[in-house]
Amino acid sequence: MIFTSDNASAASPEVMAAIVNANSGYQSSYGADAAMARVTEMIRDVFAAPDAAVYLVSTGTAANALALAAHVQPYHAIFAHAAAHIEMDECGAPEFFTNGAKIIRVAGDHGKIDPAALDAALSGTGTSVHGVQRGMLSLTNVTEAGTVYSPAETTALSTMARAYKLPVHLDGARFANAVIATGAHPADLTRRAGVDVVSFGGTKNGCLGVEAVVIFDPAKAWEFELRRKRAGHLFSKHRYLSAQMEGYLSGGAWLMRARHANAMAARLAAGLTAQGTTLQHPNEANMIFVQWPKGTSQRLRAAGAAFYDMPASEGFEGARLVASWSTTEADVDGFLALF
Amino acid sequence: MIFTSDNASAASPEVMAAIVNANSGYQSSYGADAAMARVTEMIRDVFAAPDAAVYLVSTGTAANALALAAHVQPYHAIFAHAAAHIEMDECGAPEFFTNGAKIIRVAGDHGKIDPAALDAALSGTGTSVHGVQRGMLSLTNVTEAGTVYSPAETTALSTMARAYKLPVHLDGARFANAVIATGAHPADLTRRAGVDVVSFGGTKNGCLGVEAVVIFDPAKAWEFELRRKRAGHLFSKHRYLSAQMEGYLSGGAWLMRARHANAMAARLAAGLTAQGTTLQHPNEANMIFVQWPKGTSQRLRAAGAAFYDMPASEGFEGARLVASWSTTEADVDGFLALF
Amino acid sequence: MIFTSDNASAASPEVMAAIVNANSGYQSSYGADAAMARVTEMIRDVFAAPDAAVYLVSTGTAANALALAAHVQPYHAIFAHAAAHIEMDECGAPEFFTNGAKIIRVAGDHGKIDPAALDAALSGTGTSVHGVQRGMLSLTNVTEAGTVYSPAETTALSTMARAYKLPVHLDGARFANAVIATGAHPADLTRRAGVDVVSFGGTKNGCLGVEAVVIFDPAKAWEFELRRKRAGHLFSKHRYLSAQMEGYLSGGAWLMRARHANAMAARLAAGLTAQGTTLQHPNEANMIFVQWPKGTSQRLRAAGAAFYDMPASEGFEGARLVASWSTTEADVDGFLALF
Amino acid sequence: MIFTSDNASAASPEVMAAIVNANSGYQSSYGADAAMARVTEMIRDVFAAPDAAVYLVSTGTAANALALAAHVQPYHAIFAHAAAHIEMDECGAPEFFTNGAKIIRVAGDHGKIDPAALDAALSGTGTSVHGVQRGMLSLTNVTEAGTVYSPAETTALSTMARAYKLPVHLDGARFANAVIATGAHPADLTRRAGVDVVSFGGTKNGCLGVEAVVIFDPAKAWEFELRRKRAGHLFSKHRYLSAQMEGYLSGGAWLMRARHANAMAARLAAGLTAQGTTLQHPNEANMIFVQWPKGTSQRLRAAGAAFYDMPASEGFEGARLVASWSTTEADVDGFLALF
Repeated sequence: MIFTSDNASAASPEVMAAIVNANSGYQSSYGADAAMARVTEMIRDVFAAPDAAVYLVSTGTAANALALAAHVQPYHAIFAHAAAHIEMDECGAPEFFTNGAKIIRVAGDHGKIDPAALDAALSGTGTSVHGVQRGMLSLTNVTEAGTVYSPAETTALSTMARAYKLPVHLDGARFANAVIATGAHPADLTRRAGVDVVSFGGTKNGCLGVEAVVIFDPAKAWEFELRRKRAGHLFSKHRYLSAQMEGYLSGGAWLMRARHANAMAARLAAGLTAQGTTLQHPNEANMIFVQWPKGTSQRLRAAGAAFYDMPASEGFEGARLVASWSTTEADVDGFLALF
Repeated sequence: MIFTSDNASAASPEVMAAIVNANSGYQSSYGADAAMARVTEMIRDVFAAPDAAVYLVSTGTAANALALAAHVQPYHAIFAHAAAHIEMDECGAPEFFTNGAKIIRVAGDHGKIDPAALDAALSGTGTSVHGVQRGMLSLTNVTEAGTVYSPAETTALSTMARAYKLPVHLDGARFANAVIATGAHPADLTRRAGVDVVSFGGTKNGCLGVEAVVIFDPAKAWEFELRRKRAGHLFSKHRYLSAQMEGYLSGGAWLMRARHANAMAARLAAGLTAQGTTLQHPNEANMIFVQWPKGTSQRLRAAGAAFYDMPASEGFEGARLVASWSTTEADVDGFLALF
Repeated sequence: MIFTSDNASAASPEVMAAIVNANSGYQSSYGADAAMARVTEMIRDVFAAPDAAVYLVSTGTAANALALAAHVQPYHAIFAHAAAHIEMDECGAPEFFTNGAKIIRVAGDHGKIDPAALDAALSGTGTSVHGVQRGMLSLTNVTEAGTVYSPAETTALSTMARAYKLPVHLDGARFANAVIATGAHPADLTRRAGVDVVSFGGTKNGCLGVEAVVIFDPAKAWEFELRRKRAGHLFSKHRYLSAQMEGYLSGGAWLMRARHANAMAARLAAGLTAQGTTLQHPNEANMIFVQWPKGTSQRLRAAGAAFYDMPASEGFEGARLVASWSTTEADVDGFLALF
Repeated sequence: MIFTSDNASAASPEVMAAIVNANSGYQSSYGADAAMARVTEMIRDVFAAPDAAVYLVSTGTAANALALAAHVQPYHAIFAHAAAHIEMDECGAPEFFTNGAKIIRVAGDHGKIDPAALDAALSGTGTSVHGVQRGMLSLTNVTEAGTVYSPAETTALSTMARAYKLPVHLDGARFANAVIATGAHPADLTRRAGVDVVSFGGTKNGCLGVEAVVIFDPAKAWEFELRRKRAGHLFSKHRYLSAQMEGYLSGGAWLMRARHANAMAARLAAGLTAQGTTLQHPNEANMIFVQWPKGTSQRLRAAGAAFYDMPASEGFEGARLVASWSTTEADVDGFLALF
């Protein structure tokens, strides 16, 4: 009954098999391995983007920070939700990689940027040489609150950025879960919705540690490569990143795994609300945020459950519960039984 | 007959087995996995350093750049051999991670810093507010020329740095090969020789992608952790870094693999010199640098051999040949036969 | 009737005289001029801080950003009011000089940090390796809203920072005006109130372009000197910075000039409120913030007045009016007559 | 008999007069003062560059570092003479402002880059993702050895950079002296010789502290403005920078002052060589580098002379003697008499 995070899970069998299969003979280093050429084509197919530049790195923080750094200058502002991973959970990696760009926090319920708030932030930034200039919009889908943006919602926000000629980044650490949740084509959630660069996550959904950065304008490719190397994120034995991603994508495994995770979260949410527990955010993907009477968390943990605490209303305590590809119905039902 | 680099090899069986074994159940993320506690103790034992802080990252560039950044300020100079990896092969990662420290290139034959040159560089740096200040000494063992520093040579250089109160870094991407080549205890090549922080390589000698940073003064530990996270080098599913390192160290596998690699290089060097080929640098570890008559490289490549070109004397062409844990006697003898 | 900013004024006669007097013969460069030794002692006397390290730079942004950079690491947070100059008006200079530290915006009415908001910001920051760590508190006195902190208010906030062992910076671009407004001893507004480093402004109150950075702990002195040089802020003909500051401080000119500026602002505020105009913030120093019916600003400007627009309540328009050492009673009365 | 540096001199009468004249009434801040518009035209005229973007800063280090930062990326190399000010005398300012670009030192006698050495440096840099990429060429005229580049020499070097599409910077801290020494038109030493951006010095030749950055391609203007502000180098009371530069340029004062300084250095060189002293570098502008028998320096200083020590041949001691606009024939003859 481990619901702490999808990254507490192991790697999925198909990914591990790919790693093992990759482990023979010699391969060119630093991304020139044969599998990477295949992975590039697979990811271009996912996004219906035959010209996209595709790179692999080993962590989501690296993917996000490099994607931002390749698109903004140090005197730029990056607009992001106040709860965004790049703002709250990367120990200043965006500031490090961009050499000091500033994240402007934009408000919005349930982890989603409020269009009016974005409009105000955009129009109020960069009005003179005294302030940082408008640089980029960064969205997150699945959001940090477990909700998702539809293609239309994404387009609405990207259009506002585009009016100022800003590029748009999507933090897709849980992109597979967003695809399942929305039922949308990956291209409709990204490229066709005005997104320029995607952090396409693998780690949380069954890989050991691999994320793709997908840049739809290949003019940025060489700069990205240099920044990746300079940040120590170019693997010498790159074949093992390629293999993970190939195993992850082959046969649609990534979507199958995400579908399961979302279903387990939905089962959990349904069970909890049936028992009267309030959800703090709508359950849309593989994370649920709940609040329950004080004392509940301690009781559940004593019985073997694991999850993170979250803020809650007066008199309650909050929790985040994350389902992954490896969450079983037994895990969920066991937790609900405890409850 | 692939002698391009030790990083063209696959992972060794014991490392891959450890990865596979690690792949079940839930584990705490971000370095709190159970295996990491064991790895820390194993590495402390290797260096006879019971208080050392130990961290894992996935690339050598990350290990070096983070180790430097935790010890110098942006207005500092880092003294390193002119051919050092941090100077030549990391696309400016040290400058990035240190926020602009300057590498002062120190001369010396066969990849090893000349003590007199270091003395001149140290005394000539940091004499006023107008120049960068003395910050750190960085050594490399095995060097980029395939030679090794003995404990006494290391101590001699570190003592010069210590006279200015400078910390000393060791880039040990091929540290296992240096241990075998010198026959010295790891502690005698590092901590007891005045080294403060070691990039302890795993990738080139049989891992998929893992390097340890070993900091003998644990007061630097927390800063290092923050810098690692901020650089996107903290793995969420850290268990897979831990597993690699555990498999690498268990039962002395790392030394067994390096002993083999060094022996293969020696066999190659012996065979080539027997046929009249000149070594550009002494053969001491798992890399040899040769020069042969022009046209030889093309002929060898046509027959299936692979290696990197190197500068050479007039009328000759140079090559670097690297043996790894997976190089076989058949590889070597086949190459010699071609020759 | 120019009320745009105190930096639209010329230099005061005593400062210009000092510049002219300094303009003969040879002087050592880079801060080793004779006048700087005198200035250091004068500023130590101002703050009753006989050991303070004192440095001159030419802009307030440089003073602030260097003061911060000498006290925080790149992975640190700087807590400041949401309207602070370092957050809003320096185009990211703090992020540049600190190599990417993050400013955490703290709320509070009338430009002053609310203690409860600071408490929440401090306790909510730096709770794990995933976020930036608590680094420094930066206050501004006179605030951006023209209000002042008393010694007790300053102490209350610095004590909260001190509980986390954080150093405290004071942006004193208008420090002279704060001294006059509070009637407090400069040491009681800074050192004795828990401030570690002060940006002590000269430019706005009658200098051409000089600010002192006063560091009460001289252990930071050498690092500051290096950072100043590295930022291009070490003047070769430093005598002209020293001369300005000497002219500014001699005979208490700086306080005399600030007393006048504050009095002119008070005269303006009194006249405007007598005519029914609302002040948006209390008038405490040399800036007033007003709102008046729409159309007023245009009418005043047509008649020759100059000032900056500010946000205002529905149906109104806002303005900032700044008095300086060179504002005359005639300027004020002329403006009031227009009104 | 002060020959330490041209920055030990005071400001010239015409510059001081301009400062005094500027000191009345109100002026727009931050570069919007009326004088700046005139200065921009004057400098465009100097360089026969009607579209050039022109900015003022207060130090040569700021001018150089900002000029470089606006033209290179952090992963770039800047090619400069091994003795260049940006490499030796700015405490890493170029690395700071460029966020970690690397200066590649190029050899050459008498402070001038050797074309063959530049060719080798250019062709040997940026050959793969593992190293920094070719970014910019930076020349210095007058050089650090007191020599000058002719238009043809400048063109030869810039053409080599241009072959790789690199922009070219000129550190002209003593540009006036170079114009006099070469007799060339300023445009022929810069724009028409392939230079893209000039640090046009004022401070050493009679100003208090002002340097212009002249960017021939105005597309870089806005970025430069932002970087200047972000570095704390945008003066609020900018009128005082403008005034200095206007006084400096008006009526050709800048060339008259430099002509005098060069003549004084020539007089000194002639007198010293007549007495058998060896020049270490050709005397071409306002600096001479000599070596004389050991003990001479101490004797001269005891008699009141001032200058910097320099390296010298075995048995000798070296010195640098700098003449400025304020050096008199009596100073020179007095020194020669001592000698």
